[in-house]
Amino acid sequence: MDRRLFLKTSALGGTAAAATTLAAPAIAQGNITWRMVTTWPKNFPGLGVGAQRLADRITAATDGGLTVQLFAAGEMVPPLQALDAVIDQSAEMSHGAAYYWQNKSVGLSFFTGVPFGMTSRELTAWVRHMGGQEIWDDIYDQFGLQGFLSGDTGTQAGGWFQKELTGVEDLQGLRFRTPGLGGQVWQKIGASVTNMAGGEIFAALQSGALDAAEFVGPYNDLALGFHQVCKHYYTSSFTEPGLATELVVDKAKFQALPKNYQEIVKSCCAAEYDNVAADFAANDPRALQTLKNDHGVILHPNFPDSILEGAAQAASELLTELRDSSDPLVKRTTESFIETLNIVRQKTEGTDSGFVAAREKYLKI
Amino acid sequence: MDRRLFLKTSALGGTAAAATTLAAPAIAQGNITWRMVTTWPKNFPGLGVGAQRLADRITAATDGGLTVQLFAAGEMVPPLQALDAVIDQSAEMSHGAAYYWQNKSVGLSFFTGVPFGMTSRELTAWVRHMGGQEIWDDIYDQFGLQGFLSGDTGTQAGGWFQKELTGVEDLQGLRFRTPGLGGQVWQKIGASVTNMAGGEIFAALQSGALDAAEFVGPYNDLALGFHQVCKHYYTSSFTEPGLATELVVDKAKFQALPKNYQEIVKSCCAAEYDNVAADFAANDPRALQTLKNDHGVILHPNFPDSILEGAAQAASELLTELRDSSDPLVKRTTESFIETLNIVRQKTEGTDSGFVAAREKYLKI
Repeated sequence: MDRRLFLKTSALGGTAAAATTLAAPAIAQGNITWRMVTTWPKNFPGLGVGAQRLADRITAATDGGLTVQLFAAGEMVPPLQALDAVIDQSAEMSHGAAYYWQNKSVGLSFFTGVPFGMTSRELTAWVRHMGGQEIWDDIYDQFGLQGFLSGDTGTQAGGWFQKELTGVEDLQGLRFRTPGLGGQVWQKIGASVTNMAGGEIFAALQSGALDAAEFVGPYNDLALGFHQVCKHYYTSSFTEPGLATELVVDKAKFQALPKNYQEIVKSCCAAEYDNVAADFAANDPRALQTLKNDHGVILHPNFPDSILEGAAQAASELLTELRDSSDPLVKRTTESFIETLNIVRQKTEGTDSGFVAAREKYLKI
Repeated sequence: MDRRLFLKTSALGGTAAAATTLAAPAIAQGNITWRMVTTWPKNFPGLGVGAQRLADRITAATDGGLTVQLFAAGEMVPPLQALDAVIDQSAEMSHGAAYYWQNKSVGLSFFTGVPFGMTSRELTAWVRHMGGQEIWDDIYDQFGLQGFLSGDTGTQAGGWFQKELTGVEDLQGLRFRTPGLGGQVWQKIGASVTNMAGGEIFAALQSGALDAAEFVGPYNDLALGFHQVCKHYYTSSFTEPGLATELVVDKAKFQALPKNYQEIVKSCCAAEYDNVAADFAANDPRALQTLKNDHGVILHPNFPDSILEGAAQAASELLTELRDSSDPLVKRTTESFIETLNIVRQKTEGTDSGFVAAREKYLKI
């Protein structure tokens, strides 16, 4: 039996299909179960835990009326097939990062995070108050899907290096692990970029297949032991100023839910967006202390200027190329993103930064 | 008839009282209405609008099962009696800022924002993941209340001045409007501080009763017309690095709600926390552009160094005094706040700032 057909048939026989065929009041009287596939390992700090909390939150808020059953990466499908599992109806929800699906539309990258792009707070300003959600909806409408922001790591770390970097010349040919548009930026300034799953990075660093790597930030990186191979940790990423996660639902099934269940899913996603970001804000610095104090890691608050300058130029070229895309949706997404970025950065750079710089310089307590 | 007694009797006769006297399953079968009193004028940008959206969100998520009826400032009680209205049972919910109730416990200030204290993201790290909520609960338990974070302005603006400031000497005797612990800091560095309601500030600036004032940020300040009197706008506050709002509920009535309604209230508060912060991140910079381009306001990204240094010293003294408080809860709150701040600031100052500084310096698009 064709696997796709089997999965479709299976789904139609299950409780999930009820959502599309029964009227809302009838659904509200019985419990339905939805399957959430995720791109995260089980209990992966911050992101995987946040996905589980989101599933539990929706289940609790509906008193089990909409019970969400989570499948971690590999439990139902491999991580990078999570979205396809919703499209082919073997699951109703996917929890992951939109930039994993760049092959469907590169515009999706903007709803995760782009090099020199928006911070987490700026992203929510765009998505919730400046037209971002509407554009995202237009992209996912092509696939019968609906996306909601569901978490954020905040600004990630820049990465792990065996030697201290003195300038852009040190990057030439450096074998560096980093994914997505960020990888393209590193490539443009001379690195030899590869991508690989988180669990493979440590061995590649140890064997010498990689010279350097970036993954997430201290909270996740500590657990993977990169500090055993690399002693130089650049704590501020320019490629991932924020990394938003998404909950994606089958749009037709979602719209067939009772209106209050739809509201609950939306509010729970926004609540977890905030909560996951808070989790990283709490646990990244705790892990960083451990890396520094217990493992002797040398922290560098930023990359050398020639790297930052070259990378910003490369990011600007990349964004300009996307703005000139022949795909009208990619063009529109990029235009909206750049226009909004140039507004929202004024508060971040002109208000938030001023406070943080003053506190850093003068508050000792 | 005694007004307080009247209000109590009235409440007991209304639908709200049902929540405390009926068992949860019985409640779940009928609709109940809760009154939310707020400290904000009707449709006040960002905060008042956020309170209304929270009320509507809870109502929609419970399909009207818990209908929340909003009373703006003055509609049921004056703004600064909102919390007392919940205590004396004339309302079930209050939407405001915890630092308005400093007279009940100065520890409540920490759950709004303190001078040189936590940013909005750092505050959520403390409240949600580092023990802050538990301390807040212990403070409100004394009054039979329960608080939840419900919104945030992000870092506010520093304020409006008629003349450019050159140093701390310009503050001596300056009649400046600013409330709370921030007011105490300004007083310590020489300003003559008064507080007054937002609606009174413009006239006081015009008559010369005030030399300068701070209120919220561009989004709110623009509407009040301060730029007609003061041309110098300091865009970065050191007294309000974030201003969180709260939803406070009558704890006994809350605990008598069906469990899923409790979950809905909690998730909707967290969702609105994120949404209100996003609203300010979107609309503060838009308003700032109008102030600069249409009204010729002169923007200063920060105060002179001698003011920042003096203010940080004053804030440190103030926090140290509170840590030595004879009130064990105030002492514990302050200790936890300072300890946490010294952890979470490491990510803000060592990761977020690095990215924002690099973007500010190098990204032109």
